[in-house]
Amino acid sequence: MSNHLTPLEPKADKATVRRHNLSLVLRAVRDAGEVTRAGVAAHVGLTRAAVSSLVEQLLEGGFLTESGKTFSGQAGRPGTALKVARTGPAGLGVEINIDYVAVCVVDLAGTDRVRLVERLDNRGVPAADVLAHAARIASRALESAAEQGLRPVGVELALPGLISGGTVRQAPNLGWQRVAVEGLFAQALSTLRRTERALPVSADNEANVAALAELWFGGAPEGARTFVYVSGEIGIGGALVLGGELLRGAHGFAGEIGHVAVDQLGPLCRCGAHGCLEQYAGQAALLKAAGLDDVAAGPGVAELERRARRGDERAVTALEQAGQKLGLVLSGAVNLFDPDAVVLGGIYRELMPWLAPAVDRELTVRVVSGLWEPGSGRLRASSSSGDAARGAAALVVREVLADPLAYAQHGKPTE
Amino acid sequence: MSNHLTPLEPKADKATVRRHNLSLVLRAVRDAGEVTRAGVAAHVGLTRAAVSSLVEQLLEGGFLTESGKTFSGQAGRPGTALKVARTGPAGLGVEINIDYVAVCVVDLAGTDRVRLVERLDNRGVPAADVLAHAARIASRALESAAEQGLRPVGVELALPGLISGGTVRQAPNLGWQRVAVEGLFAQALSTLRRTERALPVSADNEANVAALAELWFGGAPEGARTFVYVSGEIGIGGALVLGGELLRGAHGFAGEIGHVAVDQLGPLCRCGAHGCLEQYAGQAALLKAAGLDDVAAGPGVAELERRARRGDERAVTALEQAGQKLGLVLSGAVNLFDPDAVVLGGIYRELMPWLAPAVDRELTVRVVSGLWEPGSGRLRASSSSGDAARGAAALVVREVLADPLAYAQHGKPTE
Repeated sequence: MSNHLTPLEPKADKATVRRHNLSLVLRAVRDAGEVTRAGVAAHVGLTRAAVSSLVEQLLEGGFLTESGKTFSGQAGRPGTALKVARTGPAGLGVEINIDYVAVCVVDLAGTDRVRLVERLDNRGVPAADVLAHAARIASRALESAAEQGLRPVGVELALPGLISGGTVRQAPNLGWQRVAVEGLFAQALSTLRRTERALPVSADNEANVAALAELWFGGAPEGARTFVYVSGEIGIGGALVLGGELLRGAHGFAGEIGHVAVDQLGPLCRCGAHGCLEQYAGQAALLKAAGLDDVAAGPGVAELERRARRGDERAVTALEQAGQKLGLVLSGAVNLFDPDAVVLGGIYRELMPWLAPAVDRELTVRVVSGLWEPGSGRLRASSSSGDAARGAAALVVREVLADPLAYAQHGKPTE
Repeated sequence: MSNHLTPLEPKADKATVRRHNLSLVLRAVRDAGEVTRAGVAAHVGLTRAAVSSLVEQLLEGGFLTESGKTFSGQAGRPGTALKVARTGPAGLGVEINIDYVAVCVVDLAGTDRVRLVERLDNRGVPAADVLAHAARIASRALESAAEQGLRPVGVELALPGLISGGTVRQAPNLGWQRVAVEGLFAQALSTLRRTERALPVSADNEANVAALAELWFGGAPEGARTFVYVSGEIGIGGALVLGGELLRGAHGFAGEIGHVAVDQLGPLCRCGAHGCLEQYAGQAALLKAAGLDDVAAGPGVAELERRARRGDERAVTALEQAGQKLGLVLSGAVNLFDPDAVVLGGIYRELMPWLAPAVDRELTVRVVSGLWEPGSGRLRASSSSGDAARGAAALVVREVLADPLAYAQHGKPTE
């Protein structure tokens, strides 16, 4: 920073404009997959000279590569094709759920380059131990990433709870209250990896980042950018996406569909209220109704699916009844929020064949606009390409794309 | 429009900028109440010369007046105070509800200058007759407005139903389906007022415009710009306001809280589903539970309030039970949407003393963030200054404020 008495603002503005344009060009290449400088210029509306200068800086910073191929466009000289780098800056996503930890490294192109999943039972385990275990898994993913020339620049945690200011305020199914996850995880990770600079860590709700993954990688039809996302796990998470943006609410706690009431006098939920959706359509309730034990890290849901597939009546009935309650609560969410679509993720994805008919039936009867027609495709399973760990990692990558200079190999630019 | 082969864009841009700045200055004066040209310049960040020229045009167009008072500011010459005109362009709002029609004329300052309310029973009456009757009431309001020198430039209808493209798609409590309200009302009004140019008519959901009235005129605490609004009438309407903007959803049908389920096996609702909130906390259900007849245009709700006030047990119990169901559904909406506040309007406003404790209790138990504390002020009655008719009229005024030139006395400017 300069202390001279020179007019700083125009200078600052020029630097700001350049940073903005670097982001613009990098994202244009990412969106196109492979494109010439001329193609970028046409797309972003800058001159070819300006684009060439920006591309040069992005090549130097390791954000772009030249493929060697040349294209001859409709006019002008042939150009070399640009691609985003398959190495360099990346994002690390860590989903800590009730019965598994999933870690994902995503590169600048959005590809999930490393995945590690461990089934385990986090219930009743002290939060610090869970976070230390997750950090060990993350550390292994960082090793794999390094072998591929990837350099994660940040960690995004995804947890099934209410999170604000780096703290899990409440995660009933983990049994956590006021756990400073960002700090604890950062500490655990830096203890394991003394050689490196500490990675910045942030945390978000698991269903929120899963919904973003669905939005970014789900291949949803154009226009279906307003949807309710429901993540079935031990608990039931939810998120609302409105015109391509996550609806976070006044305190960041929007989307808690698992605790919407099915029956005011229903069974007691871990949250302290009676008759929450989780008590009817959460994993434990579902397995119990089907006559299966809720053994975490066990074959519970896979076994339920297997039984339903072979027509086991108890399994099919349990799924149908859960679908009915899910449909009841979803119809309320649709009446309130009027989305294009309802997307079911987590354990519901594999169970769709048995859940969907009852859900669709409730929505058809109860959505007051009369716009819900059975089999319209507005109820769908989440894409298997989008999950919370990948969404979390992609959130980190999105920050890199928004301001590449801040993540250049050789540290932040001098200001 | 010009057909000459001259570069149009820069010219168009200049005109666009001026229209934008006219709006900026007009809104600055409206917000300030009374302000000098220098005060406006300081507020909007334009030069005093530019502001003077814009003010001149707004004075000529009848949007502003000079109060004659002079102020001596902190620096510079004293200036004459500007105010928005109390005459000229205005908005006409017409709320057509099940058991009343309310009409309101709002001036540029947002003041409700004319109000007409007629209690009547619109159930079972053909839509065209209801609209013709409402047009007669509106016509009388236009006469009052003219006597005050006000010139409404558009009509906004507010109806308890699902509205899109100028048509009431469905209004179960009116018994309407696919009624082209904008066209029918415009026709009825122009038949009554042959001497004038036809006023443009548009239509919106009653709870939506009531929520906007609450936002604009309710005097809500700063920051409470994300709220759930519930309008208790014969039916129950709702609206979601997110950061000061109405959340309309993918098809414009968001906010239908009256048809969120309380009990999957509950009584049949007019919408065709069972156990909707309306069947527990709507006006008819409430009066019935209190042992009162649901006579439209009768003293039903006033009598209920009178009985509750003197401690009539049946009335008090009916209100408490309705409050409990309302709280159950509202807690779901709060879990999904995470608002700052829940605002109860319509008949609920007067009934708050008996409804609120049960509503607050349910919210305290069921809001999973743990952020709902009883008596926190986050549950409140709507302001009596904001209602659907005023909100509708203010929507028209907002359009004038956004582009005053389009509504100048002598027609649209040449382009």
